[in-house]
Parts: sequence; C-alpha cells; structure tokens
Amino acid sequence: MSRLSFASDYMEGAHEAILSRLQSNNYIKMAGYGTDALTESARDRIREACRCPNADVYFMTGGTQTNATIIDALLRPYEGVLAAISGHIYTHEAGAVESGGHKILLLPECMGKISADDIRDAVSQYETDENQDHLVKPGMVYISQPTEFGALYSLSELLEISRVCRKKRIPLYIDGARLAYALACPENDVTLQDLAGLCDVFYIGGTKCGALFGEAVVIPQKGFIPHFVSIMKQHGALLAKGWLLGLQFDTLFTDGLYQEIGKPAIAAAGRIRNVLREFGFQLAYDNPTNQVFPILDNKKMDLLAESVDFCFWEKYDYEQSVIRLAASWAAADVDVDRLISVLEQIK
Amino acid sequence: MSRLSFASDYMEGAHEAILSRLQSNNYIKMAGYGTDALTESARDRIREACRCPNADVYFMTGGTQTNATIIDALLRPYEGVLAAISGHIYTHEAGAVESGGHKILLLPECMGKISADDIRDAVSQYETDENQDHLVKPGMVYISQPTEFGALYSLSELLEISRVCRKKRIPLYIDGARLAYALACPENDVTLQDLAGLCDVFYIGGTKCGALFGEAVVIPQKGFIPHFVSIMKQHGALLAKGWLLGLQFDTLFTDGLYQEIGKPAIAAAGRIRNVLREFGFQLAYDNPTNQVFPILDNKKMDLLAESVDFCFWEKYDYEQSVIRLAASWAAADVDVDRLISVLEQIK
Amino acid sequence: MSRLSFASDYMEGAHEAILSRLQSNNYIKMAGYGTDALTESARDRIREACRCPNADVYFMTGGTQTNATIIDALLRPYEGVLAAISGHIYTHEAGAVESGGHKILLLPECMGKISADDIRDAVSQYETDENQDHLVKPGMVYISQPTEFGALYSLSELLEISRVCRKKRIPLYIDGARLAYALACPENDVTLQDLAGLCDVFYIGGTKCGALFGEAVVIPQKGFIPHFVSIMKQHGALLAKGWLLGLQFDTLFTDGLYQEIGKPAIAAAGRIRNVLREFGFQLAYDNPTNQVFPILDNKKMDLLAESVDFCFWEKYDYEQSVIRLAASWAAADVDVDRLISVLEQIK
Amino acid sequence: MSRLSFASDYMEGAHEAILSRLQSNNYIKMAGYGTDALTESARDRIREACRCPNADVYFMTGGTQTNATIIDALLRPYEGVLAAISGHIYTHEAGAVESGGHKILLLPECMGKISADDIRDAVSQYETDENQDHLVKPGMVYISQPTEFGALYSLSELLEISRVCRKKRIPLYIDGARLAYALACPENDVTLQDLAGLCDVFYIGGTKCGALFGEAVVIPQKGFIPHFVSIMKQHGALLAKGWLLGLQFDTLFTDGLYQEIGKPAIAAAGRIRNVLREFGFQLAYDNPTNQVFPILDNKKMDLLAESVDFCFWEKYDYEQSVIRLAASWAAADVDVDRLISVLEQIK
Repeated sequence: MSRLSFASDYMEGAHEAILSRLQSNNYIKMAGYGTDALTESARDRIREACRCPNADVYFMTGGTQTNATIIDALLRPYEGVLAAISGHIYTHEAGAVESGGHKILLLPECMGKISADDIRDAVSQYETDENQDHLVKPGMVYISQPTEFGALYSLSELLEISRVCRKKRIPLYIDGARLAYALACPENDVTLQDLAGLCDVFYIGGTKCGALFGEAVVIPQKGFIPHFVSIMKQHGALLAKGWLLGLQFDTLFTDGLYQEIGKPAIAAAGRIRNVLREFGFQLAYDNPTNQVFPILDNKKMDLLAESVDFCFWEKYDYEQSVIRLAASWAAADVDVDRLISVLEQIK
Repeated sequence: MSRLSFASDYMEGAHEAILSRLQSNNYIKMAGYGTDALTESARDRIREACRCPNADVYFMTGGTQTNATIIDALLRPYEGVLAAISGHIYTHEAGAVESGGHKILLLPECMGKISADDIRDAVSQYETDENQDHLVKPGMVYISQPTEFGALYSLSELLEISRVCRKKRIPLYIDGARLAYALACPENDVTLQDLAGLCDVFYIGGTKCGALFGEAVVIPQKGFIPHFVSIMKQHGALLAKGWLLGLQFDTLFTDGLYQEIGKPAIAAAGRIRNVLREFGFQLAYDNPTNQVFPILDNKKMDLLAESVDFCFWEKYDYEQSVIRLAASWAAADVDVDRLISVLEQIK
Repeated sequence: MSRLSFASDYMEGAHEAILSRLQSNNYIKMAGYGTDALTESARDRIREACRCPNADVYFMTGGTQTNATIIDALLRPYEGVLAAISGHIYTHEAGAVESGGHKILLLPECMGKISADDIRDAVSQYETDENQDHLVKPGMVYISQPTEFGALYSLSELLEISRVCRKKRIPLYIDGARLAYALACPENDVTLQDLAGLCDVFYIGGTKCGALFGEAVVIPQKGFIPHFVSIMKQHGALLAKGWLLGLQFDTLFTDGLYQEIGKPAIAAAGRIRNVLREFGFQLAYDNPTNQVFPILDNKKMDLLAESVDFCFWEKYDYEQSVIRLAASWAAADVDVDRLISVLEQIK
Repeated sequence: MSRLSFASDYMEGAHEAILSRLQSNNYIKMAGYGTDALTESARDRIREACRCPNADVYFMTGGTQTNATIIDALLRPYEGVLAAISGHIYTHEAGAVESGGHKILLLPECMGKISADDIRDAVSQYETDENQDHLVKPGMVYISQPTEFGALYSLSELLEISRVCRKKRIPLYIDGARLAYALACPENDVTLQDLAGLCDVFYIGGTKCGALFGEAVVIPQKGFIPHFVSIMKQHGALLAKGWLLGLQFDTLFTDGLYQEIGKPAIAAAGRIRNVLREFGFQLAYDNPTNQVFPILDNKKMDLLAESVDFCFWEKYDYEQSVIRLAASWAAADVDVDRLISVLEQIK
C-alpha cells in the first residue's frame, strides 16, 4: 500500500476543468505575454468576484516570484517592508526581497498575525527618530491571509490595519498563497471584495489552490503601479504563454469554483484536528484552515513517519516536536480515513 | 476565414504527448521543487542525450528568468557579460541582467553571431588597460544558438570561441531558447553533445519548442555552480510543482522527440523562403532556421497585415520594412499554403 | 630635476584658503552628517551663486559616488539613463550604475556631447515600440559639462536638451566634475544660474577644482528627491564629518573663488595648444577647457614620456597615439614653460 | 559660556600632526587612487603594526561605506551575514547591506557581543535544515570591537569565534570604527596582531580616532579578495586623491600614535563613570571604553540638556532614559571638569 502524504498542499496537479480546457485549447494560436482573450476574460471574472471593476490584474507563476516582484515595485530604495518575523518573505524565500535591495522590518506576531498597533508604533518610531536618515523607512506592510500558521485575520483586524496604513500612507499588501482555504472556512468573515477594499495589492493563490501553477495579482486602484509588466519582465516573471495562467484563473473564477475549491481541505483538516484532540494530542497552533500542527512525542513522530509524509515544523522541547499535516483541495476522504487509523495506532 | 498567424513560435500549447501525460499524472502526489522522480528521470534523459552523465540539470519557466538567474550565478559583482549588441539579454529583457547588478559588455556581431577574435580582443584589452580597476571585468560570454536572426554557429566557430573562453578562464553560456530549430536543421553541425563539451552552461528551450513552458539548464561539470537551487529560489525561479517541468522534458527527451520536433518548422520556413525568392522578394537575413526575414514595400506589408499576423522587425529604408515570419513546431501545411497564396497576391 | 606631471587635474591638495581654514577650525566641535553651520553656510553661498534660493544642496566625496547615488535616486527600477557612449558612467566607473540595478541607454555623441534630437528620438522610439514592456524606459538624461573630451555645451544646446527633457518629463542631470574649467573659459556661455534653471540635478565638482575632495549636488527644485540623505547613507556617501565638505565649498564659494579658480588651467592649456600647433602637432579633439589631446608619433610619445607624465588616451593609428595633457587649477607657469621646452625638443 | 558637547566622538578635526603634514604636502603632485608613495608607506606601517607583512591594506572614507563594500565583496548572492541584532550594519546604516542584495542573519547578543556558540548553532541549523534551498546561507560573521555598547571581546572570546568560523569555513570580519579606544583600554587584551591572526578582514577606524576621515581595511591573507579596488570603485568608495587617506594613516601609524591616541578618551570616560556612580547614577551598560551610558530621570536629562549635548540612547522606563556620553581622542580635561560640575548640580 502506498505511503500517505500530508506533506503539503501543492503536490497534485490541477482541477479537472483546467486540464480539459488545456486540452481543447492546445492548438489555438494565442497572443503572447498575457495579451490574449483568455487572460482578459480571467481578469474580468476576478474583477467581478472582487466587485472591483477597475482593478489591474496580473498573473505570475509562483509565490516567491510574486512577492519579490510586488515588493520591489512598491518600495523606493530607502524603504523597507514591515512583516511578521514568521513571514514567508523573511523565512523561506532565500533572501529574495533583500536580493532586490530591500530590508524586511520585523514586527512581533501571534500565530503569524501582526497588529495594527505594532504597525502604527513602528511607523511612529521612525517618524520621530532623530537619526531618521540612518534608518530604513517603513514603506509598506506585508501580511498573509491565512498566515504561515494557518490563522485568519478577522475583518475587524484587517479594517484596523488598513486604517493605519492609509493614515500613514503606506501600501498594504496581502499574500494570499492559500487564500482559497481562508475563503472556504466557516470562521472566515473576509471576502474577496473586502480584500479589494482594504488593501493596495493582494494576490489570489493558484498553485496551492487548484491550479497547476499561478498566482493572480489584484491591484484595486487602476494604475497604482505604473509599468508593472516591465517590472515583471525584469524579474523574469512574465510568462511567454501568459494565456496558460489566464486559462487557469478563468476556469477557477467560473461559477464560483475558487470560493468552493478549498472546502474538502477544510473538512479534512477539521476531521484530523478533532481526531487528534480525541486521541489526546495537543495542537501547537489552533487554526481553522487546511494546516494542522499537532505536538508529538518524537518516538510517535518517528512511527508516523513510517507510513505518512508530513512536514517537520519545529522542536517543541527535547522530547516533542511540532509537525504540520496539510490537506489540499484534492484531499480524498479515503486518505484521511487512513491517516486517522495510523494516528489511532500511535496515540 | 480566420487570420493566419506567423507572429511567433510560442503561440500554441504543447506536444500532445505532454498533455496526455499531464492528464494521467494529475492526482499522483509528487514531491515539491523538482525533487520528484519525474524530474529526476528527465535529468537522466537529458544527460544521456548530451552524453554527459555527470551534468547538473535544472528547470526554469522562461528564457529571461533563466538568463538572469544563470548570469547572476556566474558573475562576481565586478564582472560583466560579453554579448552581441543584438543579444536578447541586451535588447528585450527589460534590463533584467542590469537589474541583477551586472553590466553587459557589447561586442560587434554579424547575423547575431560574435567571433572568437572579438572575445579575445575584449578580454586582452581589459587585461592590459592601465585603468583596469575602473573597468568592468569580462566575466563570461553569452551567445545564442540559433541567434536572434536565426543564424547558426558552426561547430568550428564554437570550438574557437570555446578555446578562447577556456584560455581566458571565463565561462561560456549558450542560450538555446530555440535550440530545437537548430537541431532540426540540415545545415546544423552542432549536437547537444558538442554543446555540453564546449560550454560551461547552456539551456535547452522548451517554451518555443513543444512544451507548454520551461527551459532545461545543463551544467556539464557537476557542482560548477554551488547552491544553484537557492539562487533559483532567490530569483523566484523555483517552481513549487517542479514536476510539471520534469514531466515535459521527460517527454521531450523520450525517443528523440526534441531532436525531431523542430522539423515541421524548418520545412515550413524553407518553403516560405523559396516562395519569397521566387516572387521576387529579398531576404534581409538569410538563415536556415524557423524564422524568415523578408524585405517588403510598406504598402505590401500593409496588405499582408490584412490577413496575416507577423512581427515588424525594423525599417529597411523610407519605403521598405523588414518583417519576421516565424514557423513553429506545430506549423500546419495548410497554413503555409494559405500564406503562400496571400504572398502571391501581393507580390 | 623632477618629472613634470600633466597626467590629471586631481594631483594636488587644495586651495590654500581651505587648508588654513581647516587648521583654524580643527578643535571646534561640529555637528555630524552635514547638519552643522559651516555646511549650511556653504549651501547658502551655492544657492546664491546659482540664484536659486530654494535649492536643495548636498555634499558627497567623489564623482562616481555622486553619479551612482543620484542616478539611483532618480530612476525607478524599470528605467534607465540616457548617456553618451563616451559618458564617464558608462566607461570608467566600474559598473557602478549597473551595480545599482540600472541600464545605461547609449546615445551617439560628438566630442562627448549628445543632441536634443537624439534624446527625443530615443524616447519617442520607446514610446511607440509595440514591445515596450520588454524594454528599459528612458528615465533620465546624463550629460557632462565639460565632456570627457573637454568640450562645452553651449547655452542654446542646453536649452534645447532641457526643453526635450521637460516635454518628455524625464529629469536632466549634469555631471560637473570639471565645472570650474567650464566657468573659467572665455568660450563658455553657460552660468551656474543657467544650469540651475535648465536641469533637475547637477553637481559642482570640487575634487578636480581646488578642494581636497568633494562634490556639491544642487537640486534646484526643493524636495525633488525625498529622503536623499537616507539614499546617500545607503550608498555609503554620507560623510560623518560632513562639515569638512561644507568648509571646503563655503571657501570655494566665498568672493567668487570657484568661478575664478580654473583660470590658470585654461591659460596653461591654451598656451600648450598654441605651442603644439606651432610645432606642427595635430589635436585629436579641439576644445577650450583644461585638457589637451595632441596626436603624437609613438616614438615622440615615448620620448615625451621620459620626462613628462601624461595620460594615454587611445590609438590613433598604427604609428600614432592620442594623449591627454591636463592642466589643473594649481598649474604653475614654470611647469608649462618646461613642458613647452620638452615639446620643442621632440617636435 | 559655550555648550559642552559629549554627543559623539567624530566632532573634532584631526590630530595636529595630520594637519601639518597636509599643509606641507599640498603642492606635491601625487598619483591617484591610492597608488602613491604615501599610501604605500601607510600600508607598510600598518602591516608592521599588525605583524602581518603580506596583508592587503586598502583605505576608504567612512564606516558604512567600508562595511557595505567588504560585505558585498565577501558574500555570494545566496549568502547572508551573521550579526548581532544591535549590529551597526543592521540598525543604523539605512539598509546599505540589504541594498547590496544581502540579508543580515540575526544573532542574540549581550552588550553587543555575540558568542561562538550562537554562530556555530546558526550555521549547523542551516547545514541540517531540510529546506536549506529556501534559506539564506550564513556566509560570514560581522562583529565590532568595541561593540555599539562599548564592550570589548576578550582574546579568548575572539579565539573561540575565530575557531568556529574557520571550522565552518566562513570569513570573520571585524568592524573597528572605534578600535583606538579598545587599544587604549587597560582592560583590553586583544592587539592588532591578534586581530590580524584571528579574522579574515578587519578595519582600523580613523574617522572617530584622530583622522579627518578614513578607515583602513586590513586583509591579512594577501589576495583573499580579488579585484577589491574595482569593487571599491563600483561602490563609489575609491577616493581620487587616495593619498589623503594614506597621509593620515601614515601619520597615525608613526611612532605608535594610533595605539596611544585613544587614551585621553578612556581617561575621560573613566572619570565620568566614577563621578556618575559617586553621584548615585546607575549605568545601563558598564563598559571600559570611551562611551558612558547612564540612566537618568527624564527631568534630570532635560536639565542636563540645557548645557550639554549628548545622545539619547533609549527609554529605560516611563520615567527614566538611557543617554550616551562619548569622549573623543581630543577630550579636554576642562570639558570633563565642566561636565562633572553640571552633573553635580543635577544629581
């Protein structure tokens, strides 16, 4: 019997509708670099889903690429980006942001979330520092929805963050690599329309949410980033066959598919969480989305590893570890059943 | 009747074998970032095709991304890259190389080709300049096979260039965005094995040569670029579902498909060239690959544009222009027939 | 008898008034980073000399540093700087501009000067290129007064260039490393006030014009470059004891010293040019400023080198070379006399 | 009566011997860019002081410039620099290191010092991380002697750090902006020779230690950084009249002046510390060098500010602050006397 894998949410291919459309579109000649009709249709569908008819919409191939390109586009050389110390751009992007010349200005966090107060304080501190010329100016805010720990910002939290950013005149950027899992969550009260209303740039993740690959960047205020296509090209982020991205997002935004696609993952993660608790395991981070973070004795962890792929997260103490079990949009009930029975054996 | 398009060679999707394999592989969970078995298989097939069993092989999603990442990996900050003034990195990559901090050191060219003599002179001039500290050191050579004008380096030309580079101890890098069209050409005498023997890094183009997207980087000497995966990650060039690239190149390098896939394009371009000459048109650049560069009276160009998409290349004089007609691996005889009848009408 | 040196114009120390002021100011405690009273006085004197009471004025330590910092401050990542192919930033700054991420967009030149027409054409070509997204946008213009070949832009030439830049909305930046030699020239019709009226940023060279070191950046429109001190700091261009620069420029701009200080050099260069012509030597570049570019038989050049330091400029043909003889603000008549007698011997 | 200033140690000019030598050398023509005899003599004297006859020695104009240039020269793009969270490069250089493309990898610190253990752990963690490709590789270590808090590494601490760096094969770089104050300290047991033996690059601060400006970079192993002059030029850090730096360091390293020059500052700081303790003030950081960090009630701080310039360091709590009083090489007894009497009044 094959190994089970809950290692991550980017291990399968794409939703079937995408594959079948790729097949039927294969020999139609399409214009290059995202100037084709499919991409334009995807843009319109995303604008509509965000209730933001004038938004600029662009497509890139992956999260690190998208983050590095947008941050480079938004910051001036003397500016840095405020982010949680656990932010993906700080921890797991091989220094892509710094490679573009920008400092990440660290904020404390809770479950990956930063607070409006800490943003305000950081900016105020800069504004009043007598050595200001020797500091990096906070030039934008980076947050993720959901966060690295699978937590969700509530609408009221985002409202407050947005208010601070606008008062301080620094753009707010939201990394939505796993946004479908937020949208599929009963606990979530933040819609695409809310995001478009509250931030200056955000991206809708495709790679982890039903696409083969791809992320859709939404810039609610048309023209907010001039020459963005050139900036993408310069970052090696402009796909020649841009219509591949257009086709995927056009499909994901047909009939509300994107808003639904995360539900199997949320259901699977919920079942796993319940079972873990029932079996007496503790959760290091309690969150409502598609990632589950149990604390395991190292011996039990080793036992689990015999039949299940997961992600080692961090040491909890000398004898216990935190692991991550990730359920994807393609999570199969039968796999969750099997995982549960393995957990039962090692509990 | 639909318009004809000879605008470029990256307008269709992928070879059917790739699409059908994507379909059958869709729900198999694959490891991330190119650590999967499909990618490993593709690496092996490419190593075998290059007769280079120890080569490092990596996959990226597009040409500009590949060029910028490799050049950044090969150069030290005080070094620049020698390239033809018509080199793609200099003309049409939105400054991606400079954005990475590197100067492009220009060489004269003929049909896009640079000469071993000019490379040697440029390096010697640097070596003997008394203001050397104020100059950018030539740190590598960039060439394309075929060139921007569709010309081919002969084996003897490449041998001489390679000899100079090794004598001067600077790496030679070959951009093979359209390499399949070189390999499919009767006039070509440079094999994949030759490339692996003569240069330090080259890439095998997929985007324009039968893949949905993707380029395969071959580094014949194992370990020549340490930490290359981190460098890719930093450039936003490490695809999460790296197996998508592995799958495509594994298919292209099964049963010699890559070496054959350009043939329809070469045949189509050959027919178009013959007909153009027969109809009394002149060619601005005579080359044996998949791009054709006729000189047209501007009025005839406008007539052609009524039913055919092509690429405006440059002004020839006040009354004539050079255009580019590109045939792809998916070139259909019926489209070439229709193009010929249009050309006959405007001749 | 010691060798004669006409190798460059940055070989001596500083005008005596600067040294004596350094002495008398030595133990007075001064505020750091250019926030002191001496620097503020220098700013005011420069504003007055430029008839530009609201100008921002900053001081840096050298030309390459100044060029790289200003260009980085003016350009957005997708933009490049238009410059003559002989521009100092392109040829002799070790890639400092590219190191900051920016491409230099080359223009043809005559005696180091570029024309308003060529600037207009370059911008227009970009504006109308259908592949604009793949190009680097012309984002500013860099010129030198005098040029690398010692030539001067006339007021009418600068007016035309300025008009094009303003129409195209791209900043004009003037490198005045040797500006004192322009101002001291009878042929010159461009004043400091003209420069302040016509360009967006220029710098007044100190290193080659009577200071120990230092360049004064003038930004006629107050606030045109926000956070410029931070940008300087980031470039390592903010001197801790900024008052050293303030003191020097305060001295140079007292009683019109800067406008006068180049005169001995102009006189010396004039004498040398006349004598060269009289002795039958040809000038490769005829210019009115402090650099002289005779063409010499290689044998005569070797003879000259026995007693005189000069700068080899370039090969003229197989048997002749162009050399540069530079006279500085501290040029002594006795040295010119000795040079003339050497030239007489080898003529 | 004029205000007292203990705000920093870079407020005066230079040691008299430097000024008088500048005067006498003023009209001697010197070769450019540090190729002159004075600079060569300074190099020799520094090599001798370090007992390191083969060292490469270079001169730059300031600390941020020196740090950014050296770090850029030592790191490959995928590498970052390990540093204390209070390190000057992280806190007060306006992002110069990140601007060059490099991440600063933070370590915990005590009085500004980092430990060999923490360095070892950071490197080991990287080496064993299964997501290594997504991380920035620790590529060098940055420390300061003395630290930002005026603390000194002991010889045994440096030995241990050096041992770890060599075992892990990452260069150790020491920022000696205030090195003269370490060398002048009775508590110090680390000589220039020790530094040369234990690290890969260090710099000997001039700006804060008796020079008008300038820092001397020592690279004990000849050729360790190839093309360093080009790298300096690219960073705008190559002074045209390099002999100005040579002259200053030649003077500072004549007759052991540099090793003595900090003594008045150490004596002054010692007196101030004793008096503060006697008057019942607490020290936030107890250190043996030229900076004193008392904790003051905010009201007393305001009183002090009426007649003394100092540096606000940080809030201690709601009612108290930490300030910094810095004594320089030029500290006058009379000023210390006056400071003490002010402190007595507010105690």
